Amino acid sequence: METTQPSGILSPAVTAFTEKLEIDAERTVAHFQWLLKQGCDALVVFGTTSEANSLSVTERTHFLEYAVSNGIDPRKLLSGTGCCSLPDSVALTKHAIGLGCPGVLMLPPFYYKAVSAEGLFRYFATLIERVSDDRLRIYLYHIPPISQVAISFDLIERLTTEFPGVVIGIKDSSGDWEHTRQVIERFAPTGFRVFPGSEMHLLPALRAGGKGCISAFANINPTLLQKVFQTWQRPEAESLQEEVQRQGRALRKYPVIPALKTILAEWRQDPGWETVRPPLVPLSATLREEVLRELAATRQ
Amino acid sequence: METTQPSGILSPAVTAFTEKLEIDAERTVAHFQWLLKQGCDALVVFGTTSEANSLSVTERTHFLEYAVSNGIDPRKLLSGTGCCSLPDSVALTKHAIGLGCPGVLMLPPFYYKAVSAEGLFRYFATLIERVSDDRLRIYLYHIPPISQVAISFDLIERLTTEFPGVVIGIKDSSGDWEHTRQVIERFAPTGFRVFPGSEMHLLPALRAGGKGCISAFANINPTLLQKVFQTWQRPEAESLQEEVQRQGRALRKYPVIPALKTILAEWRQDPGWETVRPPLVPLSATLREEVLRELAATRQ
Repeated sequence: METTQPSGILSPAVTAFTEKLEIDAERTVAHFQWLLKQGCDALVVFGTTSEANSLSVTERTHFLEYAVSNGIDPRKLLSGTGCCSLPDSVALTKHAIGLGCPGVLMLPPFYYKAVSAEGLFRYFATLIERVSDDRLRIYLYHIPPISQVAISFDLIERLTTEFPGVVIGIKDSSGDWEHTRQVIERFAPTGFRVFPGSEMHLLPALRAGGKGCISAFANINPTLLQKVFQTWQRPEAESLQEEVQRQGRALRKYPVIPALKTILAEWRQDPGWETVRPPLVPLSATLREEVLRELAATRQ
Repeated sequence: METTQPSGILSPAVTAFTEKLEIDAERTVAHFQWLLKQGCDALVVFGTTSEANSLSVTERTHFLEYAVSNGIDPRKLLSGTGCCSLPDSVALTKHAIGLGCPGVLMLPPFYYKAVSAEGLFRYFATLIERVSDDRLRIYLYHIPPISQVAISFDLIERLTTEFPGVVIGIKDSSGDWEHTRQVIERFAPTGFRVFPGSEMHLLPALRAGGKGCISAFANINPTLLQKVFQTWQRPEAESLQEEVQRQGRALRKYPVIPALKTILAEWRQDPGWETVRPPLVPLSATLREEVLRELAATRQ
């Protein structure tokens, strides 16, 4: 079955919480709408930046239904559905596809460490068999600094060979451009869709054959990133990418999710945006000031 | 409220699966009964060895209900209830206490890495507040080789000070005797219940003031471990502990969970016991032979 897959600037959107730490669906959807209006081509709902693993399966399905019935076009949503347990991943994946999401972003199961490539292959293979839906499109989620379980080149090779047209892309959050370059070089020529997980690599990725980026920082600077995407074949993209780098370098010194939420809280004059679920904590007052000062400085 | 807490030999019991990778409740409960008859003082249901994080919340609650209504005394079960998401941990904890389990074994949330002590404290504090049940007793689960998120001494100190009588013990699966020794030295004098996660440290832990051990290997050698527990104050415990070490050293060369399941499959002449959920894989035929040979050799 043919599907239309997103390219360009994807934001793994942050999740708003109420004071009682419940998902604030209304504020989160308003943020989704703002992101799409500001220039995001699509969103990842339930990525690392969304605190997805701090949410239960029920919270995730309910919120996704709310978003779709409140004006968010499901064709603009990749849904993060990879959990430690196969039944959870299957349930979330079926649900997202059923709602019309064009694809899912799948973490490998991340509790056990040093698992074999064979074990990871069986995990994905069993999932594909159980979901059993010709609309299924999987983007692998390689984020070893956090998951501690990597998606190796051999695993990509085996999955794309066994499940062509199903395992169709990757978010590479290794943070290592050389790794992303190699993934693109090896797999993009056959249509594999590579998105670096960092906007720091947006322009080089596009020029090497990547499809865009899925970056946490797209929560606050989608317009600038979209300009890079629009101009990547032209020389002026370089100075825009330099501006991206300046912002990225400044903000990377802080815990990413609380820093992004602090910025949104400031911009919207809505301190509730600072709320995160434990084990994350909001920025201290000192760090809060620092982040806002740094951000202002990079925009002068 | 007073509760009776287990001491001695606790097995984090393995979970049997059907060919279709569903929990085989009947065979798992039969294993629980065998373990209790062979000398386990209590069991941990849903530990690392149980492949707990490969199970959904619903599978966990259903199986626990099945076990209790099929003859397993809930007072002999500590239930593993720590998940990445607070709502899941709260739901599982309430459920286990409601069924009569004397305590829960709680992993810290393990998706995000390098989280702050403050964030972990808030996680546990929020959980305690939400469970809001005076029967709640928490054993912290320190297993940094797998969770990659440690329970620091400062966190134990803060939790036991703020929640005395609620945070009452720890399973220390650091695998590092010096660490376990320090936990016992610092916290056991005020009644904190320390269980090393390795039978290799059973005797030294008992002699230092620990309460027993919660060891994967108790799935296959509970009788021997129980003898150490019964005799720890006498000199003959030492040669028994040496036998424990010999077995432990031999089996540690193999992936623990598949190796234990291979041994149970052999003893029970039931190859179905070898089934594990991905991302784990059963032992290869070669390793299978090797494990059985090694085990036989240590028992001669």
